[in-house]
Amino acid sequence: MSALNRCIVLASRPVGIPQPQHFELTSAALAPLQAGELLIENLYLSVDPAQRGYVNDEDNYSPPVAIGAVMRSLAVGRVVESRHQAYAVGDYLYGWFGWQQLCICTADAILRRVNPQQASLSAAAGLLGINGLTAWMALHDIGKPQTGETVVVSAAAGAVGALAGQLAHLAGCRVVAIVGDDDKGRRCIADYGYDAYVNYRQPLADVLRAVCPDGVDVYFDNVGGNIADSVIRRMNRSGRVIQCGTISIPSWVPVPQGPRVEREILTRRLRMEGFVIFDHVKRYDAVAAELAALAASGKLRCDEDIEQGLEMAPQALVDVYAGRNTGKKLIQLAAA
Amino acid sequence: MSALNRCIVLASRPVGIPQPQHFELTSAALAPLQAGELLIENLYLSVDPAQRGYVNDEDNYSPPVAIGAVMRSLAVGRVVESRHQAYAVGDYLYGWFGWQQLCICTADAILRRVNPQQASLSAAAGLLGINGLTAWMALHDIGKPQTGETVVVSAAAGAVGALAGQLAHLAGCRVVAIVGDDDKGRRCIADYGYDAYVNYRQPLADVLRAVCPDGVDVYFDNVGGNIADSVIRRMNRSGRVIQCGTISIPSWVPVPQGPRVEREILTRRLRMEGFVIFDHVKRYDAVAAELAALAASGKLRCDEDIEQGLEMAPQALVDVYAGRNTGKKLIQLAAA
Repeated sequence: MSALNRCIVLASRPVGIPQPQHFELTSAALAPLQAGELLIENLYLSVDPAQRGYVNDEDNYSPPVAIGAVMRSLAVGRVVESRHQAYAVGDYLYGWFGWQQLCICTADAILRRVNPQQASLSAAAGLLGINGLTAWMALHDIGKPQTGETVVVSAAAGAVGALAGQLAHLAGCRVVAIVGDDDKGRRCIADYGYDAYVNYRQPLADVLRAVCPDGVDVYFDNVGGNIADSVIRRMNRSGRVIQCGTISIPSWVPVPQGPRVEREILTRRLRMEGFVIFDHVKRYDAVAAELAALAASGKLRCDEDIEQGLEMAPQALVDVYAGRNTGKKLIQLAAA
Repeated sequence: MSALNRCIVLASRPVGIPQPQHFELTSAALAPLQAGELLIENLYLSVDPAQRGYVNDEDNYSPPVAIGAVMRSLAVGRVVESRHQAYAVGDYLYGWFGWQQLCICTADAILRRVNPQQASLSAAAGLLGINGLTAWMALHDIGKPQTGETVVVSAAAGAVGALAGQLAHLAGCRVVAIVGDDDKGRRCIADYGYDAYVNYRQPLADVLRAVCPDGVDVYFDNVGGNIADSVIRRMNRSGRVIQCGTISIPSWVPVPQGPRVEREILTRRLRMEGFVIFDHVKRYDAVAAELAALAASGKLRCDEDIEQGLEMAPQALVDVYAGRNTGKKLIQLAAA
């Protein structure tokens, strides 16, 4: 283990989606571990749409990453040195370890202890990480899908959407994918339990009417914007809208305009509710165990789209926003 | 009792808020009662913002009133002839009896049997009618106000708002009124349990920040539009928005644009939910009993703004949209 750490820092603050030029690959010396700290060697970095929000100078879940600081990111890593009694060398952890090879952190940074017997180490960052946990909890807590209902999922082939579709299918629903190209749509049907798909590049209101003749009961919204506008206007009375992401909106400064929803919410008695996985830490292990069991029994599939090398991370994030990933986007580091 | 009925019919279809010229006062002969029907003499007609939606040619709770048909309205009336075994001459009822002196209807039109011992007959159309029932159920079912939370109510001095404010106060909340003039604001504080008011004709974002320094936990929204935009941006994490009305929006054709809410809902984990009282018929009697008890014990005040004579109804509706009423707007008919 070298005392020199390679890391990707935020070089300038982007408006909207961060581009590779907003980041810089650097090296930094590692300080000696303090009491209570861990040294973690990252194995898989998680590339997530939410990372835009970590660098934008907007009111968000958390304060923005400072210029010059290591890019905030979830990762799966292995403890290589420990000054915390609860964690031993060789333990696998999932947490806020950043876009870097090595991470010095306290226990606050840890989201979950990873059990390598439960699934592959990479799965800890996707199926059993925020993507799977989000799909399961948001669908069941807010969507409350009932047998025979119609569930629509946007970004349907994405890391959350592909799992949400399968979980809605397992709940006995008719599940409709919204995607941006037909290849993804076909993959949704072949691999992710969807009954049908619509390509949002077609006239969406018309296509939705044809594909959801009985309306929509649950909308698992990962995108917001025009796509959400169309789905909301197809919703049945007492429908539920899970606001899980807004990836279709390139920037919230200034706030984009759209058709008002007050009347849709009122006359259709809709419930729209936001979901952020970090509110639900205490349930991670229980839901992860459920997801792992479904995967082990062949009922749940989680595709991964893995690239090699720390330097690939910034472009990988751009690719996720462009929808070029096929499955959960991860960066595998040399140590993995 | 005359066999000739005076009634107000819809003469032409308005876009937006109906005006007096959209209505016509006419007389019509009454047909003989059929089996299962009742003849009801109206005592109080209810004048409600929702009536705009009954005449607009828009997708709504119910099909629009036909041209030439009696204007749809709730009313309190007395049975004067009955061919239905469950209802006797002299019974007081609250239901869809229309803007007319006499109403022939079946039991489907009845919302509630009125107990004249429980409160005044006029209260059956307001405090114990859709206004009070809406205030109570929407606040408690969706708003779930907790002691010490901040509740904001728009159209705060209106027939629903004045009761919602008092009920939120009784729930131990800090309650803030949004009104369109300072006289109403002062009445909100003096009479309706509000702790403070803001006048929406001032710069609302600034005023709200000053009056709700700890943010907003529950927004009881009767108006939608720009006012809702400002309140939603002051909401605390896990805040609840009760979508109960959209009176500030003059027309939904074409759908007006506004700042998108997806990101507010997501990052603040808001829940926005529509409430329509007619979904909750089975609970009317239980909640009305609770409201009547609060009123009888002096804890709940319901002001009424009563005009005399059927012909006043169309202008009264315009006045309600203009916020010129002081309390629940009712039309008292000669028989009352």
